[in-house]
Amino acid sequence: MPRSGDVAIVGATGAVGREALQLLSARGVHPGRVRALASARSAGGSVGYGTERIGVGLLESESFEGVGVAVFAACAATARAHAGRAVGAGAFVVDNSSAYRLDPAVPLVVPEVNGDTIDGHRLVANPNCTTIILLTAVEPLRRRFGVEGLDVVTYQAVSGAGSAGIEELLGQTRREVGSRGGFENAEALIERGRVFGEPCAFNVFSHDSQVECETGVNGEERKVIEETRRIWNDPCVRVTPTCVRVPVLRAHTEAVTVTLGRPAGESEVRSVLAAGEGLEVLDDRAGNAFPTPRKSSGRDPVSVGRVRPDPGTPLDREGRTRRWCMLVCGDQLRKGAALNALQIVDRAGAWRAATFEPALSGRPT
Amino acid sequence: MPRSGDVAIVGATGAVGREALQLLSARGVHPGRVRALASARSAGGSVGYGTERIGVGLLESESFEGVGVAVFAACAATARAHAGRAVGAGAFVVDNSSAYRLDPAVPLVVPEVNGDTIDGHRLVANPNCTTIILLTAVEPLRRRFGVEGLDVVTYQAVSGAGSAGIEELLGQTRREVGSRGGFENAEALIERGRVFGEPCAFNVFSHDSQVECETGVNGEERKVIEETRRIWNDPCVRVTPTCVRVPVLRAHTEAVTVTLGRPAGESEVRSVLAAGEGLEVLDDRAGNAFPTPRKSSGRDPVSVGRVRPDPGTPLDREGRTRRWCMLVCGDQLRKGAALNALQIVDRAGAWRAATFEPALSGRPT
Repeated sequence: MPRSGDVAIVGATGAVGREALQLLSARGVHPGRVRALASARSAGGSVGYGTERIGVGLLESESFEGVGVAVFAACAATARAHAGRAVGAGAFVVDNSSAYRLDPAVPLVVPEVNGDTIDGHRLVANPNCTTIILLTAVEPLRRRFGVEGLDVVTYQAVSGAGSAGIEELLGQTRREVGSRGGFENAEALIERGRVFGEPCAFNVFSHDSQVECETGVNGEERKVIEETRRIWNDPCVRVTPTCVRVPVLRAHTEAVTVTLGRPAGESEVRSVLAAGEGLEVLDDRAGNAFPTPRKSSGRDPVSVGRVRPDPGTPLDREGRTRRWCMLVCGDQLRKGAALNALQIVDRAGAWRAATFEPALSGRPT
Repeated sequence: MPRSGDVAIVGATGAVGREALQLLSARGVHPGRVRALASARSAGGSVGYGTERIGVGLLESESFEGVGVAVFAACAATARAHAGRAVGAGAFVVDNSSAYRLDPAVPLVVPEVNGDTIDGHRLVANPNCTTIILLTAVEPLRRRFGVEGLDVVTYQAVSGAGSAGIEELLGQTRREVGSRGGFENAEALIERGRVFGEPCAFNVFSHDSQVECETGVNGEERKVIEETRRIWNDPCVRVTPTCVRVPVLRAHTEAVTVTLGRPAGESEVRSVLAAGEGLEVLDDRAGNAFPTPRKSSGRDPVSVGRVRPDPGTPLDREGRTRRWCMLVCGDQLRKGAALNALQIVDRAGAWRAATFEPALSGRPT
């Protein structure tokens, strides 16, 4: 009896894969309908699924038979090797790697922004986490006022580099707070890790992606520029990113200055943001309570706060300006990756009823 | 026998006071010439001076007799109560609090920028740490090309809130890495501290200064705006700051975009920065090695790297642009506070020869 309602998570043991499994479990997808897949290095063990654990199967050419939805949370090489095969087997595929993000034949989608570009496609690319969080926050302003330029400076969690980044931060931190006498030794350098070229405990460093020797732009910044232009279908919009890592476990923070297409007043800006899809506004000036990565960790919405007109440019007679500053936080494993991928599937209407029913017996792994 | 070569450090047991004492010791100032002063809460104990310790005397009205130089590293109220008295007793005074920073009668000085405004004054204000580091980095560009606007987003160390901030970060971190099973609990919120309104371990949060309810600008950002305008004597220059704390023990990081008064090419910008006073350029694109707060901790120079033209704005035919991005790090207790104060004394020529000789016997306190 043919089945086509299974969901495959490729790269199931990585940080994004694990998050995708937790989200599927929370949505009530029966574990018998889920195939956790990984390369030979990680296959054979098990991985958490809600309060249960499910086995991790080996990713191979036959893995996608009977699969209705496949989320790739692996490297670009894995996506290039297997995503087409999954589509060929009848699956709707979302790929979280950079493999197809700039491929004109594959839509690059944040559902709140350009969900309409999915129509008719069976392979969709999930943008970079920093881009997703940024564009989700800015979208309500773009729709109402237009956007002429974006300045974004990031505070990125180490889990953007996967589980190994988390282990490196926790390990370095444990060794350091164990050995540290106190403040006087603050400058003592700890060892370089395997994941990051700089110590990550109690430090801040330029993003670990490769820097273009000609332009000085790093790989993460390049993604933010090119993906924003593609998602907005605006190849000339000014995007000025600076991407930096901080000793945070998960959730990215972004200090954003938006230059709008036309001047806006504070009440307009606030009401537009408050109604934004996938957004929450957390902006208590009197209580000094604003978005933080800890508040955003493990949660779906992108948080926006510190919303204010650029204090450096004068307001016009109606109290309006084109330059608005804000602080944005979002869980980069959730909305920045796994959640956005599932929302793409939602938007495509690609779930099958079978997904939410128990699997039949005799299921291959 | 009258003496006037003593150096007083007021607030000697705080983070900036301790740093000032270490710098005096490194300069060879005889410990017998140094008066470490503090309020009743901290007086009576001792404080490090190089490898030695010196006693901490009580700050009172007679404390400045025979003092040639006084550095105030205490709160604004203490400065208002005692700085005038120290000047009256014949001392040259540098105050690190906000008490006099916007007082037109008192120069506000970064020696590399506006050292000439010290002339004839006996009381000089030391700017906010974030401002000092920013303006030291930008000064060579300002002198050559002029500056029309500054966008600055900060990654500020907890020691900007003094020793208590450091203890809070280390304490929270110790408790958390001790109890944390792993990544899955990353979202668990730890307790709020006494110093900061948000957890500081593995977190990022908007600066803890008060936010103006009308404008949304916080106290730290207001200092950066107003002090920059005052030091540059340019009351209209556009300054757009976002000030944020990160879990770093010392040294601030700042992501800066400078809008120059006229277009500049990369080689000009680099040669001007390389020759900048108090600066070092650390900009290895191939090796992904740039300034970090750990590299800057306990060191004098302000570090500049990631120097690049804004990728969002096209270069002109000569390869020039007005918008330049860079990453800046500086030890906010050293150049951002204690070192800048001593450099003001240097620039004023206010040290007395006696300072560097042993104290006579019969010294009070």
